[in-house]
Amino acid sequence: MKNTFGQSVALTIFGESHGTAIGAVLDGLAPGIPVDEDFIARQMSLRKAVGDISTPRREADAVRILSGVFNGRSTGTPITFMIENQDTHSRDYGELAYKARPGHADLTAQMKYHGYQDFRGGGHFSGRITAGIVAAGAVAITALRGKGIKIGTHILACGGVKDRTFGDVSADIDKLDGLPFAVLNDECKDKMTEAILAAKQEGDSVGGVLETAVYGFPAGVGEPWFDTLEGVLSHALFSIPAVKGVEFGAGFGVSELRGSQSNDPFRSEDGKVVTDSNNCGGILGGISDGMPIVFRCGVKPTPSIYKEQQTVNMNTSENTTLQIQGRHDPAIVHRARVVADSITALVLCDQLALRFGTDWLAGNDNNTDKTQGEI
Amino acid sequence: MKNTFGQSVALTIFGESHGTAIGAVLDGLAPGIPVDEDFIARQMSLRKAVGDISTPRREADAVRILSGVFNGRSTGTPITFMIENQDTHSRDYGELAYKARPGHADLTAQMKYHGYQDFRGGGHFSGRITAGIVAAGAVAITALRGKGIKIGTHILACGGVKDRTFGDVSADIDKLDGLPFAVLNDECKDKMTEAILAAKQEGDSVGGVLETAVYGFPAGVGEPWFDTLEGVLSHALFSIPAVKGVEFGAGFGVSELRGSQSNDPFRSEDGKVVTDSNNCGGILGGISDGMPIVFRCGVKPTPSIYKEQQTVNMNTSENTTLQIQGRHDPAIVHRARVVADSITALVLCDQLALRFGTDWLAGNDNNTDKTQGEI
Amino acid sequence: MKNTFGQSVALTIFGESHGTAIGAVLDGLAPGIPVDEDFIARQMSLRKAVGDISTPRREADAVRILSGVFNGRSTGTPITFMIENQDTHSRDYGELAYKARPGHADLTAQMKYHGYQDFRGGGHFSGRITAGIVAAGAVAITALRGKGIKIGTHILACGGVKDRTFGDVSADIDKLDGLPFAVLNDECKDKMTEAILAAKQEGDSVGGVLETAVYGFPAGVGEPWFDTLEGVLSHALFSIPAVKGVEFGAGFGVSELRGSQSNDPFRSEDGKVVTDSNNCGGILGGISDGMPIVFRCGVKPTPSIYKEQQTVNMNTSENTTLQIQGRHDPAIVHRARVVADSITALVLCDQLALRFGTDWLAGNDNNTDKTQGEI
Amino acid sequence: MKNTFGQSVALTIFGESHGTAIGAVLDGLAPGIPVDEDFIARQMSLRKAVGDISTPRREADAVRILSGVFNGRSTGTPITFMIENQDTHSRDYGELAYKARPGHADLTAQMKYHGYQDFRGGGHFSGRITAGIVAAGAVAITALRGKGIKIGTHILACGGVKDRTFGDVSADIDKLDGLPFAVLNDECKDKMTEAILAAKQEGDSVGGVLETAVYGFPAGVGEPWFDTLEGVLSHALFSIPAVKGVEFGAGFGVSELRGSQSNDPFRSEDGKVVTDSNNCGGILGGISDGMPIVFRCGVKPTPSIYKEQQTVNMNTSENTTLQIQGRHDPAIVHRARVVADSITALVLCDQLALRFGTDWLAGNDNNTDKTQGEI
Repeated sequence: MKNTFGQSVALTIFGESHGTAIGAVLDGLAPGIPVDEDFIARQMSLRKAVGDISTPRREADAVRILSGVFNGRSTGTPITFMIENQDTHSRDYGELAYKARPGHADLTAQMKYHGYQDFRGGGHFSGRITAGIVAAGAVAITALRGKGIKIGTHILACGGVKDRTFGDVSADIDKLDGLPFAVLNDECKDKMTEAILAAKQEGDSVGGVLETAVYGFPAGVGEPWFDTLEGVLSHALFSIPAVKGVEFGAGFGVSELRGSQSNDPFRSEDGKVVTDSNNCGGILGGISDGMPIVFRCGVKPTPSIYKEQQTVNMNTSENTTLQIQGRHDPAIVHRARVVADSITALVLCDQLALRFGTDWLAGNDNNTDKTQGEI
Repeated sequence: MKNTFGQSVALTIFGESHGTAIGAVLDGLAPGIPVDEDFIARQMSLRKAVGDISTPRREADAVRILSGVFNGRSTGTPITFMIENQDTHSRDYGELAYKARPGHADLTAQMKYHGYQDFRGGGHFSGRITAGIVAAGAVAITALRGKGIKIGTHILACGGVKDRTFGDVSADIDKLDGLPFAVLNDECKDKMTEAILAAKQEGDSVGGVLETAVYGFPAGVGEPWFDTLEGVLSHALFSIPAVKGVEFGAGFGVSELRGSQSNDPFRSEDGKVVTDSNNCGGILGGISDGMPIVFRCGVKPTPSIYKEQQTVNMNTSENTTLQIQGRHDPAIVHRARVVADSITALVLCDQLALRFGTDWLAGNDNNTDKTQGEI
Repeated sequence: MKNTFGQSVALTIFGESHGTAIGAVLDGLAPGIPVDEDFIARQMSLRKAVGDISTPRREADAVRILSGVFNGRSTGTPITFMIENQDTHSRDYGELAYKARPGHADLTAQMKYHGYQDFRGGGHFSGRITAGIVAAGAVAITALRGKGIKIGTHILACGGVKDRTFGDVSADIDKLDGLPFAVLNDECKDKMTEAILAAKQEGDSVGGVLETAVYGFPAGVGEPWFDTLEGVLSHALFSIPAVKGVEFGAGFGVSELRGSQSNDPFRSEDGKVVTDSNNCGGILGGISDGMPIVFRCGVKPTPSIYKEQQTVNMNTSENTTLQIQGRHDPAIVHRARVVADSITALVLCDQLALRFGTDWLAGNDNNTDKTQGEI
Repeated sequence: MKNTFGQSVALTIFGESHGTAIGAVLDGLAPGIPVDEDFIARQMSLRKAVGDISTPRREADAVRILSGVFNGRSTGTPITFMIENQDTHSRDYGELAYKARPGHADLTAQMKYHGYQDFRGGGHFSGRITAGIVAAGAVAITALRGKGIKIGTHILACGGVKDRTFGDVSADIDKLDGLPFAVLNDECKDKMTEAILAAKQEGDSVGGVLETAVYGFPAGVGEPWFDTLEGVLSHALFSIPAVKGVEFGAGFGVSELRGSQSNDPFRSEDGKVVTDSNNCGGILGGISDGMPIVFRCGVKPTPSIYKEQQTVNMNTSENTTLQIQGRHDPAIVHRARVVADSITALVLCDQLALRFGTDWLAGNDNNTDKTQGEI
């Protein structure tokens, strides 16, 4: 389905980095969810480029809602978010029209779109397209909060600096809420920033790891095959530009344990089943077990660097070199974090609607015993 | 879509570990693909439990084709594979009906299916269900080979022993073809086997890492958002029971590099663009770049161990302990390897059919300039 | 999705007329639905060829359930129905391998499958494939009945004879239940039978119109655009071989009315909203209004006739004539009726699961307020 | 998928009658298709309300393209069309907020959206939403024309007046192109207009029948089950507000013929297979046969009439009466005609892309033999 993801709650995204506008259509969300434009703007601000560690391109990222909201709440029909591009430099793109930037999608775009793609600033491949995901994600996050479900992502690693992992998941998610640079251990912020700036000074860039936790998600959601919770989440998470790995719970680390270490023993507590360890990341057999869902995304360094690189001329197939100009991020892991939250929220809203029906998120009386037109 | 995966070429799987039969329906494959029952049997044998390092349950795994094959070739309509269960022990399952096995899906199945699930031997969650995937995957692998595309998976790590990674990808894939215990460095086989047997002796189990490479896959396949090649592959790969992480190219490792290290420089060679390194795993912007596609799956240890474990009684919610009896695998990574090949082949057939049309894999003349009923 | 239909409750069908077996996989049905093999057999019998008005091919149509049923109830995982073909005449198909039968899919199959299709008896295009739909539909009908929803189809017209339309919908559906030749006005049975036999005697065939009603379907199900109830029902109904038209409520007739005649006025009755007329067929804006859903399918005459017909040789592209031999139905409208009921039931189960969640049909407690693993 | 339709070429629509903007996102269209804003405007004008026979609401319907077009051609990524609402009367909607208009979706919207729906002017159910379909359809029509495929729809019946059916399909489609009131027999225009005005004068409305033909569509496209061409076309066509019936070829009429009359004999002509009659509407076994695809949609009279109607108060469940004020169409069949063309074009682009690949419509070299990054 290309630019649409989700079955019951579905997101469609559109736009190019230097086109007229970017945006998203969020379809299938329960009617009656509050749509708070201030909260959307707050979330957008977390994705924005700020300070020395981000691109100097500064977009207002004002979100205009075109449809689907009435009296401040979702109507149940498509909500459309439009963000006009403003700070686009209309300079000549010159050699970027035909020299493929290593690590970017220029070459593969050419293979797929045969030269018709809008190459300016990465076009439809630009990380800028995630702005629409964040706008829609803000409403999804609001919907989940209404059911006691909350999501938080922090920068577990960046430029060689490691944050601590989640401890008290609920408290940690609260702590991360709204942080411009999301780390659990406060000391990491400065260290990571330094590492980013060091790379920037050398015309280089750094990657990192994002870790996400979901608290309060109901047990019994997901499918044993194909639409496992891991499968649908990873499917969407790999859309975040630069993500090259996704792992749940103990992840790749679990492969080094023995079964007696990796199995999470069950324990009954106040009529609920809990596990003390969470190596499975809250998912067994593809289905949520009621414990926090925890996963990590490996993010590659921004491919736009200022060092000279070897590449090819796509018109002549000749070898050449390229020195990228323009405005770029020396790291995007801190900006990608709110995108991870947003995609997670959208996927989980979809899973919950598939499992419990289209009204569940809003807590609407769903007419289930009404036939013959009872209003 | 639960037990169906794929859009143009789609697989539907069914069955339970101790039910009447398991199997799969493969729909949408191009007409004219050879269906070689010997090759299917060969692939099935790679998944079979053999020797000391696997469960003593021994199934013939004879595949019966019910539909979709005529004169030894695919008809273009659904191919159905049925495998009857035979070596099922009809003993009393006793406490496994209500004691949730840690690391297994018993608890989450109860949350989702409310006690109606067939719990015998893990029911529909059993790794046994992958037999249908392997049968269908054999035909998908044949189809890909007809277009010069080949796939190989080896055990990169198991029980603390590490295999070498892919070098000459084409030759390495050929080497792996048909190996009962798939490693690139021959010495690893005995060492890994020892590690598995050591765990088994302690009533425990081990996990590992599988690494897969695809050679000869065309450039320009995949989507920039949502249906990235990474997204659709990982979506399906997380269906392999016990997989908890999927990473492409340098994967999580790339997060520790700088951009100047992780970017793969492009080079023109005989009119084609190649990269010397392959940190992106053959995928840029979600789209294949023509280099080998390379990814790894982290596999947790088999959760069935013989050590006593703490758990809950699902009927009474009381804490209890469980000592699993029955027949189990001390490791499944060696058996899961052919499942990884099979799922990969099925996903890639789907992606190619979506991109180039339903006839491409078979090389059929596709009538594209025929209107008005030209035969 | 070709041979799979449905999003939450999905059916996959397979098989060829003269292959090994035909069947269906029903995925996503709520766990806990009774699976009554006697009722399945009863429904299969309504599709069977009997008497002079049907083909002399006589199949036992014994349904073997391979998976998804445990202790007499659905498990929530795929239910697989297999029906082995038995009464296949292994004679030489001769000229049918290359002479396209008018009105059949032989020519279009050749265009799509390039000669790889199993042409024997129509192969995968055969009406015989509907047997799998009827088996799965029987379980869907049982599920709906558990929620007070019932479906009935009668032969509104056949061979120039017209049955009355639905009056007291609930009573009429009850009357139709299990009738081998389903008409509301008893006198129509003999008249229609005579018309069929008259055509048969001339080596010809007749078509007809099926009318279906659904009673007790909840209001508020369906979508305003694309997935209108009319859209999803018609999508599936056109799969019934020979259906060339689908209309809802007053259907094409409504196009000749004025708005003041076609609008169904609303009236409040015992706290429910009802309409006295039902020109909209129970659907407004694509969404059910709680009144009976009513629609009709126009069915063309069986294309297999014994008269000589003009056609082409698909190998040589030359004009030729064809006189069909073999066993055929002079009418299929009476056998298609249970297929209409079955497809309708499957589509509505899917719509209800999408709207109210996967547990609704079974009335399971759906854990909606349970987090943290409450069993 | 609610407001998204299509698998390879997919349309997503959004908006409400009196909201900020309406529009559509067209995803998956081949790169390189010319996007002609004049032609889009021409198509939009055919949907516009003009003269006495349409609503006095006059919208500029200026289409703003937000994404997916670069240098006048499709990029292959989502094309977004936005149409701002302008001529919305901000009067008090008064009783329309709680009195359900008969024949409209007010009641069913209440059942589904629980009062959160934007009820103004029908909100998301308004025929106005088809403007986005027409904008996107214009590009789809252009794409098809590039491959010699053309579509035309005329008003076969309206207010008791009948147009002739298609004769020379290619010439008839050319004749219809751009006609503001599309009939094949010129005399019908005035007669139909009179019938519409007569109804209008009485505060009433009329319905009609639309007939569509597709010329030049390749043989071998469509599926035998579920995704039959009839199924996917009808699925989408029932989204046109007020359509209550869809029939192909001889449609319901075929049910009154004998097989010897309804079968279309095949004949070889210049190496192509043709049929002289076209009772099957160009589709056999769900697959195109290369002859023109022909179908009809039955359209109910506009439900907004000025006569007093009986209804219920949705707040109190009491019976009441309603006399609709505001601006309305006494007929919509003439405006719906371009919507039928547009939806047909979009569905067929999707079917062609699924069958022949994503590049086929644009005639791009599709890299099929390129591996290893050949540009």
